[in-house]
Amino acid sequence: MDVSEIGEFGLIDRLRAALPATSRRVAIGVGDDAAAWAAGDGFVLATTDTMVAGVHFLPDAVPWRDVGWKSLAVNVSDIAAMGGTPSVALVTLCLPPSTQVEAVDELYAGIAECARAYGVDVAGGDIVSAPVLAITVALYGTADRRDDGSPRVLRRDAAVAGHAIAVTGPLGGSGGGLRALRERGSGAASTALIARHMRPRPRIDAGRAALDAGVRCAIDISDGLVQDLGHVCESSGVGATVELARVPLDAALVEQYPADARMLAATGGEDYELILVAPDDVLAATGAALGAPMWIIGRITEGRGVRLLDEDGRDIDVASGGWDHLKRTPA
Amino acid sequence: MDVSEIGEFGLIDRLRAALPATSRRVAIGVGDDAAAWAAGDGFVLATTDTMVAGVHFLPDAVPWRDVGWKSLAVNVSDIAAMGGTPSVALVTLCLPPSTQVEAVDELYAGIAECARAYGVDVAGGDIVSAPVLAITVALYGTADRRDDGSPRVLRRDAAVAGHAIAVTGPLGGSGGGLRALRERGSGAASTALIARHMRPRPRIDAGRAALDAGVRCAIDISDGLVQDLGHVCESSGVGATVELARVPLDAALVEQYPADARMLAATGGEDYELILVAPDDVLAATGAALGAPMWIIGRITEGRGVRLLDEDGRDIDVASGGWDHLKRTPA
Repeated sequence: MDVSEIGEFGLIDRLRAALPATSRRVAIGVGDDAAAWAAGDGFVLATTDTMVAGVHFLPDAVPWRDVGWKSLAVNVSDIAAMGGTPSVALVTLCLPPSTQVEAVDELYAGIAECARAYGVDVAGGDIVSAPVLAITVALYGTADRRDDGSPRVLRRDAAVAGHAIAVTGPLGGSGGGLRALRERGSGAASTALIARHMRPRPRIDAGRAALDAGVRCAIDISDGLVQDLGHVCESSGVGATVELARVPLDAALVEQYPADARMLAATGGEDYELILVAPDDVLAATGAALGAPMWIIGRITEGRGVRLLDEDGRDIDVASGGWDHLKRTPA
Repeated sequence: MDVSEIGEFGLIDRLRAALPATSRRVAIGVGDDAAAWAAGDGFVLATTDTMVAGVHFLPDAVPWRDVGWKSLAVNVSDIAAMGGTPSVALVTLCLPPSTQVEAVDELYAGIAECARAYGVDVAGGDIVSAPVLAITVALYGTADRRDDGSPRVLRRDAAVAGHAIAVTGPLGGSGGGLRALRERGSGAASTALIARHMRPRPRIDAGRAALDAGVRCAIDISDGLVQDLGHVCESSGVGATVELARVPLDAALVEQYPADARMLAATGGEDYELILVAPDDVLAATGAALGAPMWIIGRITEGRGVRLLDEDGRDIDVASGGWDHLKRTPA
């Protein structure tokens, strides 16, 4: 049996079974946006993400500086989804020996830009030879301790039936940007979409405001709204209903790809906004603290799975929505 | 210019220049075995290492379980070289979709064995599709604080002229094991050497004993004795003289490859013993605490560079000794 048959999430389940935490040190292990363990009066948060040339980005179509930015930004987003503060990163480069030094310099420059923007120090890493270029960032952050001793973070497994589901910004821009890259689109709307795809702005601000307002449950949108909300539901043992018409759409996306905008927003992935789950008044307080709207798009339910409803309240089939890093996609 | 012209260490220098730590948070940044930053009353240590199929291991020649062990063990060795205590790991797998699930299960089993042996919890990671199989482990550990507020660790940049150079165990076994793998060697000596290569035993015990005895300077032997000692000399602004005849040799290596044993011990790499630099009495105290010999192999000098001397006190040319992960090796 090859791994494409069980997919990324099947492998994560096997990892969890094969590598149970053997101590009480780990407060949050495999299965949330970041791991957490106690350090001093608080907690260390840790996450890691890899970008592989030809798989996660198109090396001929995008500037190396943008690849560098994104390689760190996607990790910052995991810390944002915990409500944490990013601090120190390690950067690993797998490089074919024929890689141009100028490309690596630009990669570093993009990482440095993102590090400055989010207050991250790059403290080390590894450089190895490999047949394909890949960048792995391991990012550490911090979280405080609650009075009961648990980490003061946003978790995937804290959704409660009846709570509202909000997103922190318009969606679909990144998916539109990927399409614009593939179509070699030009013009202002395409350029804006490509920037959404390659220069995501992780929502550290929103994660922190949500935590301060009393939100307990969040995830960042990396695999796609429906799939990431599905991770929340599975971890929390609940279901969710989302009204597609209420999902906020990226303006450039509506301009460039009006017919597909809604589905790209629901399933496109890599927008790196947050999904927040909380009572309505807590979400309102989060928005007030941020000075920005929280878009309520649906509600947590009893039961299981994510239902996506059209304007007439009919179910939309999203069985194949979202992104699994290993599974074969239907032709 | 491609990266093979400037090599791994040239790229690390560029990384250091491009990504200066922007805060005072990082106590030890790029250039030591692990990074260190303050957390609570102590310090977090962090390191990461990648193993790429076909580059760092021969996927048809070694069991996946051994690859799993080694992928974590090489990181544990970096923590050992700091005198730290390993704690939590993140594991990233780059997998071709055709990878067999059984291979991944065995990888996990090997990681789990090493994790149990060294008290490490695996708390998360990432799994991505890639054209080549690679395993990246990011490992965190802990270190105490000295009275002056600095991390209580062993550093590369603390070698002092006149101090003795010791190694914590026989060398060359791993290099001999790599050769035995390539030659498809069998028999007891080959098997022992291959085990040295694929199942290294990081010296957490020796790092801790050295720190307790007052040693300030160490590095682990990953690139090779001469090259790793060179890193110490460069970081510390000193030179070193090593008497090749005093370098302890792996017994199976002497049995299997008697003619090449000394040079494999000096340049072979991946033995994951420690090089300790300290006054003779401090090294003696380390050995006494461990109940094991510390092999004194040479001395730190004024000047620069590592001199390797034969039994008659003549210089041995080791210009091409050791391992750079990117540079082309002379044909």
